[in-house]
Amino acid sequence: MKSPLIQKIASFIPLSVNDEEIILQLFKERILEKEESFLRIGETCRYFAFIESGLVKYFINQDGNEFIYNFGRKNDFLCDYGSFLNRRPSVKNIEAIERTRLWLLSYEDLKFFYSSVTEGERFGRMNMENVYTETVVQLVSQYTDTPEKRYLQFLRNFPDLVQKMPQYYIASYVGVKPQSLSRIRKRIQEGDLLT
Amino acid sequence: MKSPLIQKIASFIPLSVNDEEIILQLFKERILEKEESFLRIGETCRYFAFIESGLVKYFINQDGNEFIYNFGRKNDFLCDYGSFLNRRPSVKNIEAIERTRLWLLSYEDLKFFYSSVTEGERFGRMNMENVYTETVVQLVSQYTDTPEKRYLQFLRNFPDLVQKMPQYYIASYVGVKPQSLSRIRKRIQEGDLLT
Repeated sequence: MKSPLIQKIASFIPLSVNDEEIILQLFKERILEKEESFLRIGETCRYFAFIESGLVKYFINQDGNEFIYNFGRKNDFLCDYGSFLNRRPSVKNIEAIERTRLWLLSYEDLKFFYSSVTEGERFGRMNMENVYTETVVQLVSQYTDTPEKRYLQFLRNFPDLVQKMPQYYIASYVGVKPQSLSRIRKRIQEGDLLT
Repeated sequence: MKSPLIQKIASFIPLSVNDEEIILQLFKERILEKEESFLRIGETCRYFAFIESGLVKYFINQDGNEFIYNFGRKNDFLCDYGSFLNRRPSVKNIEAIERTRLWLLSYEDLKFFYSSVTEGERFGRMNMENVYTETVVQLVSQYTDTPEKRYLQFLRNFPDLVQKMPQYYIASYVGVKPQSLSRIRKRIQEGDLLT
């Protein structure tokens, strides 16, 4: 049984036995305890990571409130690419919501991965295409969607999190107070917003 | 003397004589006359392109007005990646401001480029990293910057266009009417906004 990290990368590119050995040597394990930070505003993101298990939130401070604009979960890659690629201080926070097992790759080791894994560059190109597409959708939604649309988008993107996630996290993602979220949910259950 | 297209790609990756031949065979020339469209809202972007000469605007319709959110000029790549990569209808327009000479690559030919040019995938990965970084900066600016900040950003990003560009294009980029742009320029010349 291959590790989840190897399975994830193999979903992009074929991996030889040698490629798998390189990957397993390069990525370093790290556990984030609940509420431990992966990245804070002002720090430079030093790692490209894979989430083997757990859950993280991406958030910024907006008008004094924590605004969660994304979640990362099991089987996702995790990175602030803007900070990581350009070695610039981040404008976001990334923090574990629950105990999270990560596999980390430094900037230098990612460059080594690209040049030494047989189709490493292809993986990089495909991953950046995905990241680009997801980030554009996320940013446009963050700035233009109504709370109702944000909530429907949450249901679509994170159906597995609806039950297990505390309500105030969902409210923060939607950009409203928890009591407003209850009203939005009620209206959606009544079918008002589904057409 | 190498063609501008070859010089551009060679600024990312080393190119063999064979690589150059592949590239020159794959890219097809196209001239856009002044005000001719490269892409319209609702169309799927079919080409990744290189601008050998000329100037284009990227714009959307916002509250009934044309909002120019970016320019593409000589030596830039040109594409709506969100539409091109995901074969989805575009939500933007791209149009020539002046006569523009392009070199086009279709989606299928770009895939062929990646697999047949020696370091083609590396080019793709590096280009997508650049596109990611530029798009995030552009989107955040589009949604959060004040007109003054947008104008300073225009001066920084397009110093070569300040003189040659009609004022109403710059006003559209800044998100104001031309008369408001004059006031912003005056305040900046007086040094109010430069600190």
